[in-house]
Amino acid sequence: VNRKDRAFWERQQQTPLYAALTRHTGRSPRPFHVPGHKGGRSFDPEGLERFSAILPLDLTEITGLDDLHQAEGVIAAAEALAAEAFEAEMTRFLVAGSTVGNIALIMTICRPGEKILVQRNSHKSVFHGIMLAQARPVYIVPAIDPDTGIAACLRREDVERALQAHPDAKALFLTNPTYYGMGTDLAKMALLVHRYNIPLLVDEAHGAHYGFHPALPPSAMQSGADAAVQSTHKTGTSMTMTSMLHVQGERINRERLGQVLAMLQSSSPSYPLMASLDLARRHMVFHYAAEAERILPQLALLRERLSRLPWLGTAVCAESSVYSTLDPFKLLLSLRSGQLNGYQLQARLEERGIFPELAQTGHLLLAASTGTSPEDLEWLWRALEEISAGQAATLATLPPSGLLASAYLREQAVPMEAAVYAGKRLVELEQAEGLISAEMVIPYPPGIPLLAPGERIDADAIAVLRELRAGGARFHGVTDGRLERIAVLEKV
Amino acid sequence: VNRKDRAFWERQQQTPLYAALTRHTGRSPRPFHVPGHKGGRSFDPEGLERFSAILPLDLTEITGLDDLHQAEGVIAAAEALAAEAFEAEMTRFLVAGSTVGNIALIMTICRPGEKILVQRNSHKSVFHGIMLAQARPVYIVPAIDPDTGIAACLRREDVERALQAHPDAKALFLTNPTYYGMGTDLAKMALLVHRYNIPLLVDEAHGAHYGFHPALPPSAMQSGADAAVQSTHKTGTSMTMTSMLHVQGERINRERLGQVLAMLQSSSPSYPLMASLDLARRHMVFHYAAEAERILPQLALLRERLSRLPWLGTAVCAESSVYSTLDPFKLLLSLRSGQLNGYQLQARLEERGIFPELAQTGHLLLAASTGTSPEDLEWLWRALEEISAGQAATLATLPPSGLLASAYLREQAVPMEAAVYAGKRLVELEQAEGLISAEMVIPYPPGIPLLAPGERIDADAIAVLRELRAGGARFHGVTDGRLERIAVLEKV
Repeated sequence: VNRKDRAFWERQQQTPLYAALTRHTGRSPRPFHVPGHKGGRSFDPEGLERFSAILPLDLTEITGLDDLHQAEGVIAAAEALAAEAFEAEMTRFLVAGSTVGNIALIMTICRPGEKILVQRNSHKSVFHGIMLAQARPVYIVPAIDPDTGIAACLRREDVERALQAHPDAKALFLTNPTYYGMGTDLAKMALLVHRYNIPLLVDEAHGAHYGFHPALPPSAMQSGADAAVQSTHKTGTSMTMTSMLHVQGERINRERLGQVLAMLQSSSPSYPLMASLDLARRHMVFHYAAEAERILPQLALLRERLSRLPWLGTAVCAESSVYSTLDPFKLLLSLRSGQLNGYQLQARLEERGIFPELAQTGHLLLAASTGTSPEDLEWLWRALEEISAGQAATLATLPPSGLLASAYLREQAVPMEAAVYAGKRLVELEQAEGLISAEMVIPYPPGIPLLAPGERIDADAIAVLRELRAGGARFHGVTDGRLERIAVLEKV
Repeated sequence: VNRKDRAFWERQQQTPLYAALTRHTGRSPRPFHVPGHKGGRSFDPEGLERFSAILPLDLTEITGLDDLHQAEGVIAAAEALAAEAFEAEMTRFLVAGSTVGNIALIMTICRPGEKILVQRNSHKSVFHGIMLAQARPVYIVPAIDPDTGIAACLRREDVERALQAHPDAKALFLTNPTYYGMGTDLAKMALLVHRYNIPLLVDEAHGAHYGFHPALPPSAMQSGADAAVQSTHKTGTSMTMTSMLHVQGERINRERLGQVLAMLQSSSPSYPLMASLDLARRHMVFHYAAEAERILPQLALLRERLSRLPWLGTAVCAESSVYSTLDPFKLLLSLRSGQLNGYQLQARLEERGIFPELAQTGHLLLAASTGTSPEDLEWLWRALEEISAGQAATLATLPPSGLLASAYLREQAVPMEAAVYAGKRLVELEQAEGLISAEMVIPYPPGIPLLAPGERIDADAIAVLRELRAGGARFHGVTDGRLERIAVLEKV
């Protein structure tokens, strides 16, 4: 399908959008259009140090620079090259993160009241998409990794059961890989879902690099998914907040998708951000594999070294794992010493200049990438060795993490969007048992809702939330950011 | 209220968010978090030229960098300084343009089925907000500027009539200034609307600079509006796609607003973009007035010179105007020669390196700013003089512009969001008379919908659209970007 002949490599050398921007700048244009800073001529003097090189590219939809919402020039060309590189039939650049891609897919697929099968440990944007589409979610609870207690992937048998029980469902929306790097066999999942003739939609926010090196799992597009949303900024090499939406096949209405994207995305999209997608696509085609080749063996070595520290467990994908792929760039550490929890280990590392991706009571997640240097890994290893010196040999089991499976099984007492519009009041978290949540409670990161609006709050949810709160987790979606109080429906 | 004492100036010197980013970078951190480029270490080599200085600031929600969606650290501090500078009680940074601010305000104010009074020549994001909120718009048609044929502002008597006829309306949403720089007396409008005890919401996308120089009209916040959305990037000095949402008083539910913003904005907001808001606020407080002082007299001189060209009219705010304020940075040229239309004048200027903001058949809009240099204006004047040489003295009236008043009076045959979900088919534009539009037809710029979904297409709409199409206008929201065909409802 994707023949990498000489013409492919020649085409992929081009960066039509970035080239158009630099070409325009080279003409010393006289700008009588927005933005107001006019290439940096009116800008904070101190800030210019950092911003001066990029501001001339901070342009708008003038002649020759196309229009993201109706692309037929350089943006369309850049998207077409991305589609070729990522093996999609159509690719759309996103300037509002994978958030907008997930929402747009659900609004494209579901009309009000229609059902969609959804992995329960999805990113909050999936829940928000369901609310905006007024769809009816049918949650499928993922398998739990017994080594770490972390929610992993959907089992195919659970998906099949849901497909049979809900023949009117319009799609399956799953996350692959998860925030922690765990993945399922997507090709088999696609075959299964397609037997029921509905599309497989994949939140591939954490898998923009998949398929770009033999040690990495195949991407959603390569596996036959109908649509995939990738945070190119997370594991690829574009700027933060830039993502891509890939589509193939006939199961997605592309016109409606375009209209929804035009509705949700800014009518003044950032050209430097879009250009960074154009550049990232080229960089990934030509340099990703070589850069990965340099750092992956070092990561393997680090994993080996880490296995010598009895107080730290590292996730390893084995025959018996509940997941079938694991992103080699993600280092998920489980804390087995009773003396140090994830937040404390994070603080110790940060004192040493090492900034992790995520801390939870029992875990620490480190996200490496092609931008990680061998020195970074050496530094990390030395820091962990040092911290290790203080760790007693006594191993304890820490309290369950906030992402345990039981946290995903709650009664949807009221439909999600109805709960959002109902009267609400604040109660102490400790006194909320049995009441119905009026808000989405989202520990962040990873941004996976623990409670959705309309769900009944049980003792288990309260216990997990108290634990996260005590650990210093941040909460999105809530009225009280400290989660001392929680919003519940006034009338039950 | 906003006492500019010594403490004010000292506080406003701070840029807490930008400072935190540079401080973090100065520590030579080892990043084990997203983004994948890790400060630019894995990035397209050619692109690095432009991006290398900014990439180290392209960070994420790590320790010390706060969280846009639950701000309580450096982002909250930066927003508080912005609130003080823009004279709001609360300011929220927006990374998805004013689009997301307009949508969020409507979703905050209106529950499904509730009414909202809306200026008909609003930006498409206002219509999208209405659709997402499932609100019922009550359009108020603006006064038309007889000199240019361009839709300007709402008349207070029309607003009062609508307030009386619709006592159940939840808010008035208006645009001030318009894309063309025309504005109303907002303070009087606020008094009127508040007599009916509903909030005045202002799309102030084109007025982020208002209130920052004596020659500029007061801002929406200064005029007593309840909420205002400003494209800081357009007329202020931040990067494209960054905006601010200002709120004051008790008529807006701030909690709900925060939840809606968290739903619609990326969970990976761009730190460089947010930092540019922090920098722009400081820059505008300390430098905007002086920079405006340097260029405004030059703009006045240019207007004077332009009045010597009989084939060009320039908008001037007079006692008899249907608008009461005019942004001195906007130059709206009306083409009075029968030989050259707006698109052709645009092309002639672009040949000379001058890039206008907007061309329409009968108009050209030039947007100056504090980033405009006297040389730019001189260059523009010489170019127009040169082009002038070829213009005959015979003055003709061009066909009416696409933004004439009659373009705003259509029958809403079906509710907007119902039309979006109904069955549709494509017909030739010329054969669509009497049918019901299934899509939003948005000439861009300025992005003001000419047809909303559910509206009946009349001969007038077809004529205006054909004219815009012939002139080479772009269309957003439509299935056929060239608008040869238009989507209509299958069953009427």
